[in-house]
Amino acid sequence: MQPHALTAAEAASLIRDRRLSAEELTRSCLDRIAAREALIRAWLFLDPDLALRRAREADKRQAAGLPLGPLHGLPLGVKDVIDTADMPTTQNSAIYAGAQIGRDAACVAVARAAGALILGKTDTVEFAAGGRKALTRNPFNPAHTPGGSSSGSGAAVGDFMVPLGFGTQTAGSHIRPASFNNLYALKPSWSLVSREGLRMSAISLDTLGWFGRSVADLALVAAAFRLPGLGAHGLGAHGLGAGPAPGVRSLRVGLCRSPVWERIEPAGAAALETAARRLEAAGAIVEPLELPAPFAGLTAARDVIARHEGSAAFLPEYLAAHALLAPDIRARVELRETFDAAGLLAAYALADACRPAFDALFGPRLDVVLTPAAPGEAPEGLHTTGDWIFNGMWTLLHVPCLAIPCIRGPRGLPVGIQLVGPRLGDARLLAIAEACAPVIDAEPGWARATLLS
Amino acid sequence: MQPHALTAAEAASLIRDRRLSAEELTRSCLDRIAAREALIRAWLFLDPDLALRRAREADKRQAAGLPLGPLHGLPLGVKDVIDTADMPTTQNSAIYAGAQIGRDAACVAVARAAGALILGKTDTVEFAAGGRKALTRNPFNPAHTPGGSSSGSGAAVGDFMVPLGFGTQTAGSHIRPASFNNLYALKPSWSLVSREGLRMSAISLDTLGWFGRSVADLALVAAAFRLPGLGAHGLGAHGLGAGPAPGVRSLRVGLCRSPVWERIEPAGAAALETAARRLEAAGAIVEPLELPAPFAGLTAARDVIARHEGSAAFLPEYLAAHALLAPDIRARVELRETFDAAGLLAAYALADACRPAFDALFGPRLDVVLTPAAPGEAPEGLHTTGDWIFNGMWTLLHVPCLAIPCIRGPRGLPVGIQLVGPRLGDARLLAIAEACAPVIDAEPGWARATLLS
Repeated sequence: MQPHALTAAEAASLIRDRRLSAEELTRSCLDRIAAREALIRAWLFLDPDLALRRAREADKRQAAGLPLGPLHGLPLGVKDVIDTADMPTTQNSAIYAGAQIGRDAACVAVARAAGALILGKTDTVEFAAGGRKALTRNPFNPAHTPGGSSSGSGAAVGDFMVPLGFGTQTAGSHIRPASFNNLYALKPSWSLVSREGLRMSAISLDTLGWFGRSVADLALVAAAFRLPGLGAHGLGAHGLGAGPAPGVRSLRVGLCRSPVWERIEPAGAAALETAARRLEAAGAIVEPLELPAPFAGLTAARDVIARHEGSAAFLPEYLAAHALLAPDIRARVELRETFDAAGLLAAYALADACRPAFDALFGPRLDVVLTPAAPGEAPEGLHTTGDWIFNGMWTLLHVPCLAIPCIRGPRGLPVGIQLVGPRLGDARLLAIAEACAPVIDAEPGWARATLLS
Repeated sequence: MQPHALTAAEAASLIRDRRLSAEELTRSCLDRIAAREALIRAWLFLDPDLALRRAREADKRQAAGLPLGPLHGLPLGVKDVIDTADMPTTQNSAIYAGAQIGRDAACVAVARAAGALILGKTDTVEFAAGGRKALTRNPFNPAHTPGGSSSGSGAAVGDFMVPLGFGTQTAGSHIRPASFNNLYALKPSWSLVSREGLRMSAISLDTLGWFGRSVADLALVAAAFRLPGLGAHGLGAHGLGAGPAPGVRSLRVGLCRSPVWERIEPAGAAALETAARRLEAAGAIVEPLELPAPFAGLTAARDVIARHEGSAAFLPEYLAAHALLAPDIRARVELRETFDAAGLLAAYALADACRPAFDALFGPRLDVVLTPAAPGEAPEGLHTTGDWIFNGMWTLLHVPCLAIPCIRGPRGLPVGIQLVGPRLGDARLLAIAEACAPVIDAEPGWARATLLS
C-alpha cells in the first residue's frame, strides 16, 4: 500500500518503528495531490518544498532520539479560516487574499508541538459562514459537493491526499463533510479545545474539529490536545485513563431520529437503520430516544444565535471592505439595526436549559446517542454544500459529535452517521466509537478500493 | 486647555467644527506622553511619526469632505493583548516579544473604520491572565498600582496621555483599573462586541471594554461598534434610538453591596454610599438590592470556568515554549490532568441560572444596579494589581458594567462605582449613566486640576 493510503494511526506506528519516514509519507501525499488536485481542488495553498523540508526535519528529530509527540511526522491539512504563521490565511475572502498572519492559531501550534506537519491550507466557504463556496469537488463523484464549509479538508482526507485535516463547525460544517467524504471526524465539546486563531463567526457556536480515517486517528489528535481522560497517545498502547474500554455488547445506544426527521432522505434513513441493526446484531441494546419537546426549538435558536453573534463578528469587514464582503454576510451585520435582544436571550435560555437536560440522559440507561450525520448523500453541484439540519442542534448543545462511515447510497456516494455523547465526555465517546466503528463501518476497504484502484 | 486634557467627546466635537485638528490633538497627546512616560510607563509600543502621519491623513480626509466616523481623529491606546497589523503585539510575554501579527483585531479594525487613530500599545499583565505584571504606575501616586490587567490603557487615559483606551476583562481587569485611575469605562455585554484578535484566556468570560473620561466618550465608541439601540454618534446629537432619555428623578436604583461585601474597604464603602446619597438627593429612588442566594456562588464558579477554559487557551505556549511561560499559567494547563468536568458543568449551570434571574430583576421596579467597582483605593506597590472580587460575578453574568468616578479616598486616590444593567441592555445603561454621571461624579475637574496643574 502506498503510504498516503494509510490511516494516520497506521502511519504513526510505522514511523515510530522506523519502517516509514515522515519524508516518504509526505512525498506520497504530495504525489497523490499532484495526481488528483486538478480534479478535486482541495487546496488553497501548498508548498511542496516547504512540506518536504519540514518532513526531513521531523525525521532528523527522530534520528537524534528527541522526544516525539503523538502526531510525529503526520501531514495535516488546515482549513483556511485557521491562522498559520508560515502560510497565507485567506478565509476564501477577497478581503484577505494573500494575508500573512504572523502567528499560528492555537490548534496549529498544538498540532506542530505534537509533531504534525502542516501540509497546506484547504479550501472553505467564505469565512466558513456564507458567500463564496469552495471550488472543491467530492472525490467519489466530482459532480457532487464534498460538503462545507470544511470542503477542502474533508475532500483532501477523503481522497487520501493527507491523513488528517482540521475543519470547523458553527452549524454542520464538519460532521456533514465527514459523511459526504466517507470520513471519521470529531467535533469536540465546545470550550475543550481553544478556537483562538480560527475565524470567529458566532462565538458560542464555532468549534474546531478534525478528520481522520479511523477512530484511532481521531484519538491521536485528541491526545495532542490533551482532552481530559485520554492517554498520551490517544487510544493506543496507553489507553484511556477512565477505566476499562467499553464494548459493543450491552452498550446502551439511543437511536435519535432527531426533531428534524422529516428532512431525512432515504439514504440517510438507511444509514441510520443500518448502523442500528449492525450494532444490535453485535449485542448492543438499541432503543429509540425521543428528546424532550423543547429540543425541537434548538435548530431555530441556533440560527438566531448565529445571526446575532455574526452581526458582531463581521462588523469589521462590513465597515472596512463593504464591497468585497458577500451580500449574505452583509445582511448579517445589518441585523444590528433590528437587533432582537429578547429573541437572542430566549435562544440562549433554551440552549442553557437543554444542555444539562441532554447530559442527564446519559448514565446507566444510555451510553451513547446514534443520530444522522447528514440528510443523505452529497448533493449534486457545487452551488450547494448540502444541508446542516442534522448538525445544528448538536453544535448548539456543545456536545462531542463523532462521525463514522456507514453505507453507500443509491448514487454510490458514502453516507455516515454520528455518535453523540454528553458535554465533556469526549474521551468516553472516543472509546465507545472505537468499539462501535468496526461494526458500523462494515466495509472499511471500500473507499480505498474505489479511489485508489 | 491643552487638547490632550479634553474628553474624547469634546475633542471630537472641536475636530468636527474644524476648531481642532487630529494632528494638533495627537501632537498634544504625544507631548504629554513625552513628559510623563518615564514615570508612568503606560506604553509598550509607540511610534510618534506613524501616529502623526495617521493624524495628518485623518485631517486630509476631513478636508476632502469624505464621510467621517464617530471616532474621527481620536487617538486610542490599545492593550497589548489585542492584535494590530502595524504594531507588535507582545501580550507582555517573552514568547511573543516583537511579534508582528499581520491583521487587526476586530475591535481595532472597527475603531479604525470609525476614524480612530491607534496611538500605540499599552502595557498589560502577561496574556491579561497572570505571570508578569505591567510596569505601569498609577498617575495619582506612582507608588501605587494602576490596577490590571488593563494597566497601561487605564493609566494612559487616566493621565491624560490619550482620550480613549481599549482594555479587556476576564475577572475584573477593566472596571477595576477604571476606578483606580478615575475613569469612565464600559464593559459591554458578552457577545455584543467581537473579541476576535484579543488574546483568549477563558472563552466564555473574556470581554473587550473601553475607557474614556465621560459617558459621552463611552457612547462614541459604543456607536462605532453599533451597539443595538444607539444612534450613529452615541448619545450626541442623534440621541438614543430607544425612546426618551431617562432622568435621575424617579430612577429606580438597586444598591447592591454584593455577596462579597465583607471584602469591601472603608474607601470602597464610602464611594458606594456617597453615590447612593447623591443619587437620592437628585431624586432617584435608591433601595437595597439583595441578590438571590445562588448568586453567592458566582465568584467561585467564575474561577472554576477561568481555570478550566484556560487549560485549553494556554496549551500551545505550554507545549511550545514551556520555559517562557509564567508558572501560574503553566499550572492552569496542568489542570487538564485533573480536569473536573462535573465541577465545570456545575459552574456553567449556575451561571446559566443566574443570568436570566438577574435580567428579570429589571423592569418597573428596577432601572439600574449600583455596586462597587473595586474594594477601595489602588493598593500600594506594583507587585499587585488589586483585587477583582467586586467584578468577577458581573463578568460571568455577561452583563454590561459602566464605571463612574466618585470620590477620593483617605490616601488621595480616586474610587469609583459601577452601574450594571441587564444583558444586552447596553444602550439603556449608557443613557442612564449619562443622567447619573453628573450627580455621582460631583467634582469632575479634580483629576485635571491634580495631574495637569
